[in-house]
Amino acid sequence: MPPGDFREWAHLSVDWVSDYLERVGEYPVLPDIAPGEVRDRLPPTAPEHGESVEEFLRDFESVVLPGITHWNHPAFFAYFAVSGSGPGIVGELLAAALNVNAMVWKSSPAATELEEVAVDWLRHFLGLPREFRGTINDTASTSTFSALAAARERCLPEAWRAGLAGAPPGRIYASAETHSSIAKSVHALGFGRNGLRIVATGPGRGMDPAALARAIEEDVAEGFRPVAVTATIGTTSTTAVDPVGSIAEVVRAHNIWLHVDAAYAGPAAALPEMQLHFAGWELADSIVVNPHKWLFTPVDCSVLYVRNSAELKAAFSLVPAYLETAEDEASHLMDHGLALGRRFRALKLWFVMRYFGAAGLRERLAHHLTLARRLAATVDAAEDWERWRPSPFSLVVLRYRPRGIAGEELDAMNMAIIDRVNRSGTAFLAHTEIDGEVWLRFAIGNIHTMEEHVDAAWTALRNAADPG
Amino acid sequence: MPPGDFREWAHLSVDWVSDYLERVGEYPVLPDIAPGEVRDRLPPTAPEHGESVEEFLRDFESVVLPGITHWNHPAFFAYFAVSGSGPGIVGELLAAALNVNAMVWKSSPAATELEEVAVDWLRHFLGLPREFRGTINDTASTSTFSALAAARERCLPEAWRAGLAGAPPGRIYASAETHSSIAKSVHALGFGRNGLRIVATGPGRGMDPAALARAIEEDVAEGFRPVAVTATIGTTSTTAVDPVGSIAEVVRAHNIWLHVDAAYAGPAAALPEMQLHFAGWELADSIVVNPHKWLFTPVDCSVLYVRNSAELKAAFSLVPAYLETAEDEASHLMDHGLALGRRFRALKLWFVMRYFGAAGLRERLAHHLTLARRLAATVDAAEDWERWRPSPFSLVVLRYRPRGIAGEELDAMNMAIIDRVNRSGTAFLAHTEIDGEVWLRFAIGNIHTMEEHVDAAWTALRNAADPG
Repeated sequence: MPPGDFREWAHLSVDWVSDYLERVGEYPVLPDIAPGEVRDRLPPTAPEHGESVEEFLRDFESVVLPGITHWNHPAFFAYFAVSGSGPGIVGELLAAALNVNAMVWKSSPAATELEEVAVDWLRHFLGLPREFRGTINDTASTSTFSALAAARERCLPEAWRAGLAGAPPGRIYASAETHSSIAKSVHALGFGRNGLRIVATGPGRGMDPAALARAIEEDVAEGFRPVAVTATIGTTSTTAVDPVGSIAEVVRAHNIWLHVDAAYAGPAAALPEMQLHFAGWELADSIVVNPHKWLFTPVDCSVLYVRNSAELKAAFSLVPAYLETAEDEASHLMDHGLALGRRFRALKLWFVMRYFGAAGLRERLAHHLTLARRLAATVDAAEDWERWRPSPFSLVVLRYRPRGIAGEELDAMNMAIIDRVNRSGTAFLAHTEIDGEVWLRFAIGNIHTMEEHVDAAWTALRNAADPG
Repeated sequence: MPPGDFREWAHLSVDWVSDYLERVGEYPVLPDIAPGEVRDRLPPTAPEHGESVEEFLRDFESVVLPGITHWNHPAFFAYFAVSGSGPGIVGELLAAALNVNAMVWKSSPAATELEEVAVDWLRHFLGLPREFRGTINDTASTSTFSALAAARERCLPEAWRAGLAGAPPGRIYASAETHSSIAKSVHALGFGRNGLRIVATGPGRGMDPAALARAIEEDVAEGFRPVAVTATIGTTSTTAVDPVGSIAEVVRAHNIWLHVDAAYAGPAAALPEMQLHFAGWELADSIVVNPHKWLFTPVDCSVLYVRNSAELKAAFSLVPAYLETAEDEASHLMDHGLALGRRFRALKLWFVMRYFGAAGLRERLAHHLTLARRLAATVDAAEDWERWRPSPFSLVVLRYRPRGIAGEELDAMNMAIIDRVNRSGTAFLAHTEIDGEVWLRFAIGNIHTMEEHVDAAWTALRNAADPG
């Protein structure tokens, strides 16, 4: 693309993005579209001859955009309400332009070192001890996989040469509330479905450390090799908190790896009033926190902290000749995970932390917590609605529960409620199941979300419950 | 960030990027910097209060940029010379702004379906049969890992529940020329270092199918379970080609998974005159091609094609309740790999294919091949230089070899030559080892590279060889 053309189209695109961000609240959050509609509106093969930028930006607006779920929308309350921010978008633009691949130090020294700096700033912001060293991965799934690979290396050293065949079966422990990516990682690492042992939880859905201790002892007696425990601070379904301090004591007795999944809730550790939920996480071997979730950094940016990065390298380092470099004292990002290639993801995180500052980030996190507590109080005061407790972060779990209705009828009623709200385009919520019953998840975390958006979505839920 | 501020800073950033891309040839390709220099110039913690964009963009220029290896530089000839392009950068800007996470269809229908469309356009461009379905991953390492995970699922079905412990040891076959990521994946999947069996190659460094057949038979007799063969079209060291058609015949007899690594060379399949190198790849179970290598798409964009996507899903699908959606007929990208979260990577690939068109892409690939052949002829004609053959794509492998010099002295001489060239900042080449001897890799593939840049780097190499 001739430089002049790039300049022209990139400026037009910036104007488009600026307009979009200003008006995103006017779009339906969820598109009104059926599977296949976007695909069917596009030709089956690439054009033979190049097209003008005008042509494909027009299709971007007329074909792609109507099929977009607007994660930027201030009434996006589904999953976890992740959101980027201006400085993050600018960071991605510059990273895409530089297009470096920081696999080894030499292939982009600044990308390697800025990653070290940015994740260390984040570590300090979170109040984690100095020994934790971080690496940026695409997603928490990948971060967790990397941590569990390091755990396997520690606990099944005989598998280094011969593989898992012939070694004792490994076991990884988690509660039923644990994110699905744990089961995926356990399976990918070769432990099979039996490799994950579900540990019972207490009434608040936090893992029961005594049940964990019993499970480990039973497994050891039966010839299993305990490998790791994954504890979660802020589970996906209800943001339950596993008691990491007590779990750490159990784990220590067996030299098992302790992984903490704080992918969503992690940033809240920066708030003094929230630190109680993080008690003991400094005892973990690894911790995952996703700035692309609740820290205003565009996807993808998941940070894996490891207490002893030599253990992570033991699982992944190979170093072929064509990647050998003279800078042996330097860090090579390819040694910290499965992927050899590494995009310059640190830039956006660094921009976000500088633009908002630690105080500005804390303020926005506190604002989301305030919105959630206000909504929680409103739900508690509303007749015919109930709220799941505890939910200590920015997620409110609720359901409609008129007197005399229960079981499948109640579930169907709640599914109909979010279906109505979601189809209306005014808000987007997801549901979850607790003890087999349907609850609605109202996840606050989008940087654009204000009181009025929470109030409007709550009104929409109430109206959907009583459409007469 | 207030919308007006975003607009202002994003426009300034576009001007910076435009200027940078115009002037990138004036920067030293490799920065003159020691490990720790970037880190040491930055404060140890994030600022407490937010900073102006001006401040951190200034640091971006004065601290980050001097530590950047300029992959965009037309004299970047190291590794594989990957390069982005204008439409790709615009695609990344828009993707960062939309910030969707296409884990399930509903969480961004257009991102899911555009990924299906863009990879199918690429499949057609490459001349692969219709049954191959693609998914975009970050890197070829991840794509290969996913393919081998599917292979494990097929060949060791008993491991689904109990894990690899107790199952026969698995074996994956590759030549010594195979990319390092294969060994990493084999290890990550739980097969250990013994899980990779190196198969002998012929004189051109392509895998010997008869040696492969013998290795498989020996392994079966010894109780190993053959799982997969990874064949490479365009190896990293010398762009050697494994005879995929003959390998496919061996593989078929044993129901082993055949994975083809065409991460770099794949796009050349679109050129009729290059199709002979791809004979038989349509028989593979999976193929990886990286548009972020030789197809002008910014990192990261690696496409994994799988003949039967149900086999890929079998390795990765879990589907917890909170991700269940009504659109069961739709595809959910999270089921195609380890990562749950999925960035909107298809947009940049779609823009690149529309901007250049199939003809424009073929033209640029052919241009790189012409530059490589021209350089090859020049090296062949030069006294005291020799060239490694075969190297059928856009990589030229060469070394200085004055009469009477051999062994370690010759190696040291060649290392000194690229060290001089790389330190000068005028070009950047990497080295490789063939039979334990040092060779220099001159990788052409950057969209900005023209005859003059190849000529200048060749002159720099000659001058470095004879600095007198």
